[in-house]
Amino acid sequence: MASLSPLINQLVTSLTILPGVGPKSAQRLALYLLEKDKAGAAMLVQHLSEALEKVGHCQQCRNLTENELCPVCDDAKRNHEQLCVVETPAEVLAIEQTGFRGRYFVLFGRLSPIEGIGPDALGLDKLKALVINNQVKEVILATNPTVEGEATAQYIQQLLFSLDVVVSRIAHGVPLGGELEYVDGGTLAHAIAGRIDIS
Amino acid sequence: MASLSPLINQLVTSLTILPGVGPKSAQRLALYLLEKDKAGAAMLVQHLSEALEKVGHCQQCRNLTENELCPVCDDAKRNHEQLCVVETPAEVLAIEQTGFRGRYFVLFGRLSPIEGIGPDALGLDKLKALVINNQVKEVILATNPTVEGEATAQYIQQLLFSLDVVVSRIAHGVPLGGELEYVDGGTLAHAIAGRIDIS
Repeated sequence: MASLSPLINQLVTSLTILPGVGPKSAQRLALYLLEKDKAGAAMLVQHLSEALEKVGHCQQCRNLTENELCPVCDDAKRNHEQLCVVETPAEVLAIEQTGFRGRYFVLFGRLSPIEGIGPDALGLDKLKALVINNQVKEVILATNPTVEGEATAQYIQQLLFSLDVVVSRIAHGVPLGGELEYVDGGTLAHAIAGRIDIS
Repeated sequence: MASLSPLINQLVTSLTILPGVGPKSAQRLALYLLEKDKAGAAMLVQHLSEALEKVGHCQQCRNLTENELCPVCDDAKRNHEQLCVVETPAEVLAIEQTGFRGRYFVLFGRLSPIEGIGPDALGLDKLKALVINNQVKEVILATNPTVEGEATAQYIQQLLFSLDVVVSRIAHGVPLGGELEYVDGGTLAHAIAGRIDIS
């Protein structure tokens, strides 16, 4: 925008890195911050730079935290016998909402030879060590139901095969509130193959 | 969220000041910044703090800029005889897109006795001086068609009454693509009262 000053234009461009924010919303956000809420914007600068500087990975589960252990790993009341493996920190939050009270392991990705993401990048050695050292009884694989997610689940299952631990995979099937007519074939096939005896 | 570290929680809270960003999207944004785009986030911190520190108001039109004059006022090719009065910087951008090539005056608000916003807060003295000193021939009042916006337009019209300047108000009527059936009565009344002879 030629009618915006260089510094404002620069801020607009920076804001477009946010997911779901295009040039138009970035403009709106930039003007809002500079015009309506300078105090809030200054706070945002401070908190974001503080987080960028200090937040790293939990020594145990790899989730994001500024401390050695994340709040979940640090919570002695958590069930340490169940370990749920997910791809991203956002998925930890989603599973927390289900009432799950075990612990997590965050891969920060999935196996993807094309992108050069191998077992090392996902910290799978660490996962194996964690299972052995922390008396984990069950590893729940909650990677996404994509090709790479499935491959990752399968790889981890084989990795833990020799250990004395139950490895389970979250169920795939018809979502609640979904109508069979509109559910895709793959999901429906999973739903039928994974049917449960209720007699 | 008990499962998020304090610094991340703090960042999430800061992000909710953005318009249209609730706690859920703020969480998504925070994790995105810390997990996927630390470089972009660092850039955002830098550009936002730079803009907060340096961006002030244009000496002439009050729009946001880090320089003495904003790019529009600084552009000698602009038609200085037309001055468009708007409430916010975002409205300058909207009017720029229509191809308008005059100059602007940004009120940063509208008259609102309830909120304690009077003529001083809107810089109306400055507006009057600008009209007198810059040989402005026409002042186009483009405040919003709300009660306060209309009152502000009326106030400015009276303020400039004794000066040798045309004061006009943007047209209100049926928007393009709108169907008469669904247009509210007030707008339709404006459209009829403001009808134009095309014979």
